[in-house]
Amino acid sequence: MSARVLVVDDVLANVKLLQERLTAEYFEVMTASSGEEALAAAGKMAPDIVLLDVMMPGMDGFEVCRRLRADLRTQHIPVILITSLESPADRVQGLEAGADDFLTKPIDDVALLARVRSLVRLKMITDELRSRSATGERMGIVEPLLFADINVDSRARILLIDDRPYSVERLKAVVSDVHDIEAVADLDQALLRASSGEFDMAIVSLTLSGADGLRLCSHLRSVEGTRTLPILVLSEPEDSKRLARALDIGVNDYLVRPIERNELLARVRTQLRHRRYAEQLRADVERSMKLAVTDELTGLHNRRYMESHLTTHIDTAIDTNKSLSILLFDLDYFKSVNDTHGHEAGDIVLTQIGGIVTDNIRGSDLGCRYGGEEFVVIMPGRSLRTAREVADRLRSVVEATEFEIPNGAEPLKITISIGVAALQGPDDTPLSLLRRADRALYLAKDGGRNQVIVEADKAA
Amino acid sequence: MSARVLVVDDVLANVKLLQERLTAEYFEVMTASSGEEALAAAGKMAPDIVLLDVMMPGMDGFEVCRRLRADLRTQHIPVILITSLESPADRVQGLEAGADDFLTKPIDDVALLARVRSLVRLKMITDELRSRSATGERMGIVEPLLFADINVDSRARILLIDDRPYSVERLKAVVSDVHDIEAVADLDQALLRASSGEFDMAIVSLTLSGADGLRLCSHLRSVEGTRTLPILVLSEPEDSKRLARALDIGVNDYLVRPIERNELLARVRTQLRHRRYAEQLRADVERSMKLAVTDELTGLHNRRYMESHLTTHIDTAIDTNKSLSILLFDLDYFKSVNDTHGHEAGDIVLTQIGGIVTDNIRGSDLGCRYGGEEFVVIMPGRSLRTAREVADRLRSVVEATEFEIPNGAEPLKITISIGVAALQGPDDTPLSLLRRADRALYLAKDGGRNQVIVEADKAA
Repeated sequence: MSARVLVVDDVLANVKLLQERLTAEYFEVMTASSGEEALAAAGKMAPDIVLLDVMMPGMDGFEVCRRLRADLRTQHIPVILITSLESPADRVQGLEAGADDFLTKPIDDVALLARVRSLVRLKMITDELRSRSATGERMGIVEPLLFADINVDSRARILLIDDRPYSVERLKAVVSDVHDIEAVADLDQALLRASSGEFDMAIVSLTLSGADGLRLCSHLRSVEGTRTLPILVLSEPEDSKRLARALDIGVNDYLVRPIERNELLARVRTQLRHRRYAEQLRADVERSMKLAVTDELTGLHNRRYMESHLTTHIDTAIDTNKSLSILLFDLDYFKSVNDTHGHEAGDIVLTQIGGIVTDNIRGSDLGCRYGGEEFVVIMPGRSLRTAREVADRLRSVVEATEFEIPNGAEPLKITISIGVAALQGPDDTPLSLLRRADRALYLAKDGGRNQVIVEADKAA
Repeated sequence: MSARVLVVDDVLANVKLLQERLTAEYFEVMTASSGEEALAAAGKMAPDIVLLDVMMPGMDGFEVCRRLRADLRTQHIPVILITSLESPADRVQGLEAGADDFLTKPIDDVALLARVRSLVRLKMITDELRSRSATGERMGIVEPLLFADINVDSRARILLIDDRPYSVERLKAVVSDVHDIEAVADLDQALLRASSGEFDMAIVSLTLSGADGLRLCSHLRSVEGTRTLPILVLSEPEDSKRLARALDIGVNDYLVRPIERNELLARVRTQLRHRRYAEQLRADVERSMKLAVTDELTGLHNRRYMESHLTTHIDTAIDTNKSLSILLFDLDYFKSVNDTHGHEAGDIVLTQIGGIVTDNIRGSDLGCRYGGEEFVVIMPGRSLRTAREVADRLRSVVEATEFEIPNGAEPLKITISIGVAALQGPDDTPLSLLRRADRALYLAKDGGRNQVIVEADKAA
């Protein structure tokens, strides 16, 4: 995949060198020769990745990295820091500033391309997610998500796959202060545990005795349940070829042994931040969609949802030869609540009714606000008889409730009238079922309200 | 990126050979030895790509491909057909059956890996989109999208980048029956035209005189506006190395000269189908989100949207020192409509009021249903005086409208009362602004209804 790379270095020769290598691989290269220039270029030209020299006069690479991360426009762009030093303390500082990876001068071509490609590939997927989420932001449904605000301090669950007892003990000792870590040595066991969905991240040793760590990584990447699980691999200094392969397969990060405590923790933290950021973006999109089928006032499903799902539930009930019942109810003399106490009081009552419905139906039942003061409950698998019991309970809970309204007024007493109907056969439609429930509801109203009427049950 | 590959061939030796090569590259391989087995495996194990032999006893590869495309669970999985023949007619048949690409036996390693990688990379992004859209399907907001239902028969706009006059003429002659095609020879001009957003697809000759077609492709892939534009490249038979590089950069498909008319059209069609499928998935997600901020009955913005955007508009008006006005109106004696003619008639009136609002405000004004029979119009940039004119117009249009209701009843006459308020200074909040409009509305009601009252204008 081609991509736009921003190269930042105050030494022109270094810029030229990287530019040449990347251009030869058909990347598009933009350049900057100071921190200030880099920030301006990143904000305006939206590169896909930034290669950032640490040692620059004026603003150094760490500071540039921090500022990129703090800006909504650039916070998601992967940053690779380029250092002439090779000390774990520098790397920790870089990771804490928000860097995703490091390259040490002189830069090795294979390492450079493997890292750039790996980060760009992951960014493409996050970009698709971000663009969905941005729609929600424009519409005011979700808040803009700041990378820096992602909570990375809560404990994570980490799966360690390593078969050298000494290494396992050492890693456990380092990580377990901050996170929960579980170690497995056996590969089949590792796959089983990883796919349990219990973990936030996997750490995989590439130097397993009698097993191929790369194979394990590739398996984790290929299976749906672990496709997006962050993988950090541990490798030996002489194993840079396998490391490049690991990045190619899709591992997210790596450490070369001997492993330095703070660098390990910082890298774990970086991966957790990326994972939680992506999870949050996904959740934002799902939440926006959920709002489309939720009644704002009561939190129940709205009419749109009810109508779409009643059809599905009727079809399923007919196909599987199971029961399906519905309740249709409305509030007695609700108009007088609005008239006497105002719309606000009416809204508060409706909200409380929503709560009573939610508390008195099963998880598989669907509580819906049909509109105004009308509610529907769809009960898959329930017979007319059970539905009547639910209706009786709802009716009596509402009757027993004191509805608190603001402005010091006395709590209100409210009652509801309910019509109950059940699927009678394959010819039933959402409309016919709702009409029968509506007729029963009318009889309940006509008979004095605060009561449950079950439709004339032809099948009985 | 690792991925799961399903290899289908009735000859065990062929299966083994492909399995070995792909496994060495750390792909996960599943195998099937007949069409029936392949369909079962694809449905159950969700591979990321299918390598499918054409010539098999029983169900041949074309038929397997067609069936994969017709099944909601497998329709999105890329298929590479493996043939021992090399005739354009076979390729056209394969493309029409839904194949994405072809490999000819004996299979060249470089070609195999380049194609598998390229298709897998694109699938990763589509998968992310599909999973968002699937949420909408579960909630009943969007319909499941069938790949086979994508309309590929409407004319598309294609940009051809080629500098050989004879080739351009020939390609134009072939394509222009079915699509609109525009040719450019100059590279700068090509980039400019491509980024105009007017095209559905680009066809790029890799053998330009004095320019590098690959560089152009990489540029199209790197720039936001053309990142997802399908690119079909045209290459020379001896140029397979550059072709592999082109796939690596992210081009979607290719043709080797001399170009066969039907194959070109079939490949264009395949790319258009993929593009329109992805566009439809994106649109479905956006539409679901839009529903979350839309009032079902009137199609206006709902309260959630109004509240979120009023804040934003007030902030913007204060920052830019511009006016901002709002109308708050409700329907006079609306309760009697519901009481006399039923809720259904009331809903029909509210819907018509929504239409009147939409027709009588600017595109930049926001018409919102605040709840019940109350409406709000937010008017960025409008002074109190202009807002009053809009209010007067709305009031008189409503007064002049005959509201048709069902059941043969006489058309209803409806009036509205409107309160108008404008931003007074940096201390204003959504609440203070709405309260002032509400007080004006109260005066309008109190003064006899069917009138517009503007708040006491301190600034005047």
